[in-house]
Amino acid sequence: MPLDQHADIEISAFNWVPDFAQGFVRDLRPRWAMEEAGIAYRTTLLHAAEPRSETYIAAQPFGQVPVMTDGDLSIFESGAILLHLAEKSDILMPKDPAGRAATHAWLFAALNSIEPFMFELFFVHIVHADQEWAKLRKPSLEAFVHERLKPVSAALGDKEYFTGRFTIADIAMTTVLREIDRYLGLSGYPNLEAYLKRCMGRPAFQRALEAQMADFTGKAPEGFPA
Amino acid sequence: MPLDQHADIEISAFNWVPDFAQGFVRDLRPRWAMEEAGIAYRTTLLHAAEPRSETYIAAQPFGQVPVMTDGDLSIFESGAILLHLAEKSDILMPKDPAGRAATHAWLFAALNSIEPFMFELFFVHIVHADQEWAKLRKPSLEAFVHERLKPVSAALGDKEYFTGRFTIADIAMTTVLREIDRYLGLSGYPNLEAYLKRCMGRPAFQRALEAQMADFTGKAPEGFPA
Repeated sequence: MPLDQHADIEISAFNWVPDFAQGFVRDLRPRWAMEEAGIAYRTTLLHAAEPRSETYIAAQPFGQVPVMTDGDLSIFESGAILLHLAEKSDILMPKDPAGRAATHAWLFAALNSIEPFMFELFFVHIVHADQEWAKLRKPSLEAFVHERLKPVSAALGDKEYFTGRFTIADIAMTTVLREIDRYLGLSGYPNLEAYLKRCMGRPAFQRALEAQMADFTGKAPEGFPA
Repeated sequence: MPLDQHADIEISAFNWVPDFAQGFVRDLRPRWAMEEAGIAYRTTLLHAAEPRSETYIAAQPFGQVPVMTDGDLSIFESGAILLHLAEKSDILMPKDPAGRAATHAWLFAALNSIEPFMFELFFVHIVHADQEWAKLRKPSLEAFVHERLKPVSAALGDKEYFTGRFTIADIAMTTVLREIDRYLGLSGYPNLEAYLKRCMGRPAFQRALEAQMADFTGKAPEGFPA
């Protein structure tokens, strides 16, 4: 179990987020990567509804999680943290140039060609669900997301993982597809459904998810809707 | 001038895109990086409105540009291509761990924490501009984008570049902020306005932009609105 209060690596996470976000906060990505690679880490917990310190904002300008510190290094953005971890372990990324390039390409594909539209699904389905514009936007947005899922499904084909073997790109892609699955379902894409099940079935994913969930020990802010 | 028909590196670009996209296509990112680092490249041109070959889709699942080939390597996603180029030249990214981590963090910040909402601005201002939902969405979206620009402006402060020196993170951030500037303006953020002017004033940016524009020699498809 990589959680170790004496570990060199520390990540920030939340001790409270609204129910819809529990299990989906971005610290899941580095937790999962470190569980895969057997890298020990400890956590520092923040409350999502409380203000951040100046020190924290200096490390994470948007006030989000995760921030990783590794000795003297401080890194924000889960994509950058995944890259940093991948340089430590062949389990997370192959060392050969072609394997690295493919891992980088699919990592950015997940975070820059798919996740942006997952964010928009999140706005439409959760944040602004009761707004007229959100209802009107849904059909064209969902059609657009399908136009992105089709090539992703075709590119995966019958491979187990996007580059042929498990990498940090699969960590990013799984966390994005899992949210798309919440809003839209993936029933038109049997290979993506099987992929998501395969990735989420990895023991390291399950341990990371449990560790994130176990940290939600904080209280909802006063007046927060139940 | 890095354009060289005998270069090892090739990128794909377009010989035609609609007017609103000219000067903003993603091949601008690697062109700029290679102009900064003095890396020679050649181009292979596609027409945005014509179907892609199976070979191209195998290299770029979404059918977009750019794809980079460098000897035997084939890489897609402009973020991954920037990383690949940055490993070749200190001009694009420092070699020390702290400098690399900061470059990675700001590269992902540009592409995963800012650009997703620029895409939504693009939908609202260009693609779906005449739709009722787009008009209704604009105020909340613009407010959200400002909530992202404020911390970006605060993090830049009075530095010339995001990590203190020019890197690929500035290439990504400039290309994103430049589009936000088109839709929203940056007049509330004097340091971001000055930053954008500083980055776009770099001779390498200007050469990259001219090279992209010079490649638009193709014809609009029949019936395409003038």
